[in-house]
Amino acid sequence: MSGGRSESVMFERIALIGIGLIGSSISHACRRASLAGSIVGSARTPATVETAMRLGLIDEGFVTAAEAAVDADLIILCTPVGLCGPIAKEISRSLKPGAILTDVGSVKAAIVRDVAPHVPKDVHFVAGHPIAGTEQSGPESGFAELFDGRWCILTPEPDADGRAVEKLRAFWEALGSKVEIMAPEHHDLVLAITSHVPHLIAYNIVNTAAHLERVTDSEVIKFSAGGFRDFTRIAASDPTMWRDVFLNNKEAVLDMLGRFTEDLTELQRAIRFGDGDTLFRLFSDARSIRRGVVQAGQDTAAPDFGRASGRVPVAPQAASKKV
Amino acid sequence: MSGGRSESVMFERIALIGIGLIGSSISHACRRASLAGSIVGSARTPATVETAMRLGLIDEGFVTAAEAAVDADLIILCTPVGLCGPIAKEISRSLKPGAILTDVGSVKAAIVRDVAPHVPKDVHFVAGHPIAGTEQSGPESGFAELFDGRWCILTPEPDADGRAVEKLRAFWEALGSKVEIMAPEHHDLVLAITSHVPHLIAYNIVNTAAHLERVTDSEVIKFSAGGFRDFTRIAASDPTMWRDVFLNNKEAVLDMLGRFTEDLTELQRAIRFGDGDTLFRLFSDARSIRRGVVQAGQDTAAPDFGRASGRVPVAPQAASKKV
Repeated sequence: MSGGRSESVMFERIALIGIGLIGSSISHACRRASLAGSIVGSARTPATVETAMRLGLIDEGFVTAAEAAVDADLIILCTPVGLCGPIAKEISRSLKPGAILTDVGSVKAAIVRDVAPHVPKDVHFVAGHPIAGTEQSGPESGFAELFDGRWCILTPEPDADGRAVEKLRAFWEALGSKVEIMAPEHHDLVLAITSHVPHLIAYNIVNTAAHLERVTDSEVIKFSAGGFRDFTRIAASDPTMWRDVFLNNKEAVLDMLGRFTEDLTELQRAIRFGDGDTLFRLFSDARSIRRGVVQAGQDTAAPDFGRASGRVPVAPQAASKKV
Repeated sequence: MSGGRSESVMFERIALIGIGLIGSSISHACRRASLAGSIVGSARTPATVETAMRLGLIDEGFVTAAEAAVDADLIILCTPVGLCGPIAKEISRSLKPGAILTDVGSVKAAIVRDVAPHVPKDVHFVAGHPIAGTEQSGPESGFAELFDGRWCILTPEPDADGRAVEKLRAFWEALGSKVEIMAPEHHDLVLAITSHVPHLIAYNIVNTAAHLERVTDSEVIKFSAGGFRDFTRIAASDPTMWRDVFLNNKEAVLDMLGRFTEDLTELQRAIRFGDGDTLFRLFSDARSIRRGVVQAGQDTAAPDFGRASGRVPVAPQAASKKV
């Protein structure tokens, strides 16, 4: 499965810089498809490195990115967006000629801006973003199927080496993904509406609910099955990761947020003036998009996500797990 | 399973006025627990009555509520909120002395206001609301487990008959629910934040996404796994039902929406001025509520709702089903 060198693997040595949900899932999916001679990794917390070693996610572990990057053929930055620039600077002199450097950050223009200046001329930098995840984080939260059927967006610069881009595409396809190539700025606009603003409003409504005087937290929790609970899942995502997303995709997020608020004001006005026709029309329009998402294989067709009903007992271990 | 009269059933004859997701689920759960001698029902569309008969949801079907209500011991209004008043008026003279009349509407003060004046003195009206559902609708979407472990809120008037309230509580408990009693106005405030505003912002972001010029619908759908797809599920809910909710819980919704917008403005400002500390603090706060929801058994602890990953093939039938 791992450790041994082989002529048939896609990369002799893969370095994961950061071993959280995405880093650990890449490792699992690499093992599943036998893509790597060896997988090494680094995390700033020694405990994370130990956990990653214990779980077999990495064959060698380091607490500095520079050490992990030495002699790697593929280096994947799997840290919060804000760390990519500083890490690129740190590993710059450790990168092997001909190596491919990529990342998995949810923002692309800022990463290209921060990382590219530190990349040596004989190293191929191709930024990337797998559109996949769960609300959990850390090296124990990863699994091999995370990328199956999901899209990975690559945002190579116009002068990028075509073979490196194609090799990275083949890598993501071998992990289970479909791959699309676009400009970093367009990625940031698309993700602002499909991911960043949805997370922001989920975080926001959870906090609005928590700060009400006339409704207790206990009531919010008990009656959350009316829709609210879905937002709490998204709002349980890693705060550091999401802070960095918003700090680094400011313009597109503010643009989309402005439109969201504009549209919400129209709905609010329809409610205030009892305009049922407008409400009905806008609610009906929204249904077709769901149909598209399900038909594109991007969500289950099962009602309520196929979620287990209330009577199914929750395993005590799972219930107490940090989410 | 059904049809026969028995001394041990809770109600000899139950009438479902409206046979959609909730009405059909009540029927399934009643059959499961053998709560009814017979279940009859009405729907305004003859095709719905036929479907309900064919599925065994009802033993007798009618196209008027007045006919269905005759001789029933328990009458449950399972229609959109806006129809409850007119139907109460319609069935008023068909109601049997001693019968219990209830409903399942997502709004309570308006229903009490609209229904109570039509209820004869010898009939017990106790308004109710099971906090359970899926994004699907119609008589084929119901299932017996829908209410398991979920809360049902009853909002009896101060002068309500205590035995009728207790009998209705026992009925919902036998359907699998937990029961809480509160004032209609408080219900409407709690549900505004746990259900109504979440639905409104889900509808809203789906429409915002659909109306972008620089991002295509196809892109929104392909990259929806970044968070957006969850909102599309909620926004696939029945437009008529939700129109009536907003028309009938105007004040509480506008109140909660005002707070939501106020809080969102704070986040927006933090993004604009690059205030990472505020973002991190607000995002971190939101995590504890998720933990509470899972610990209270109101959602699964499984990552991503335990949703099947992308490679699991979607059954063609399910994929083409109207959502």
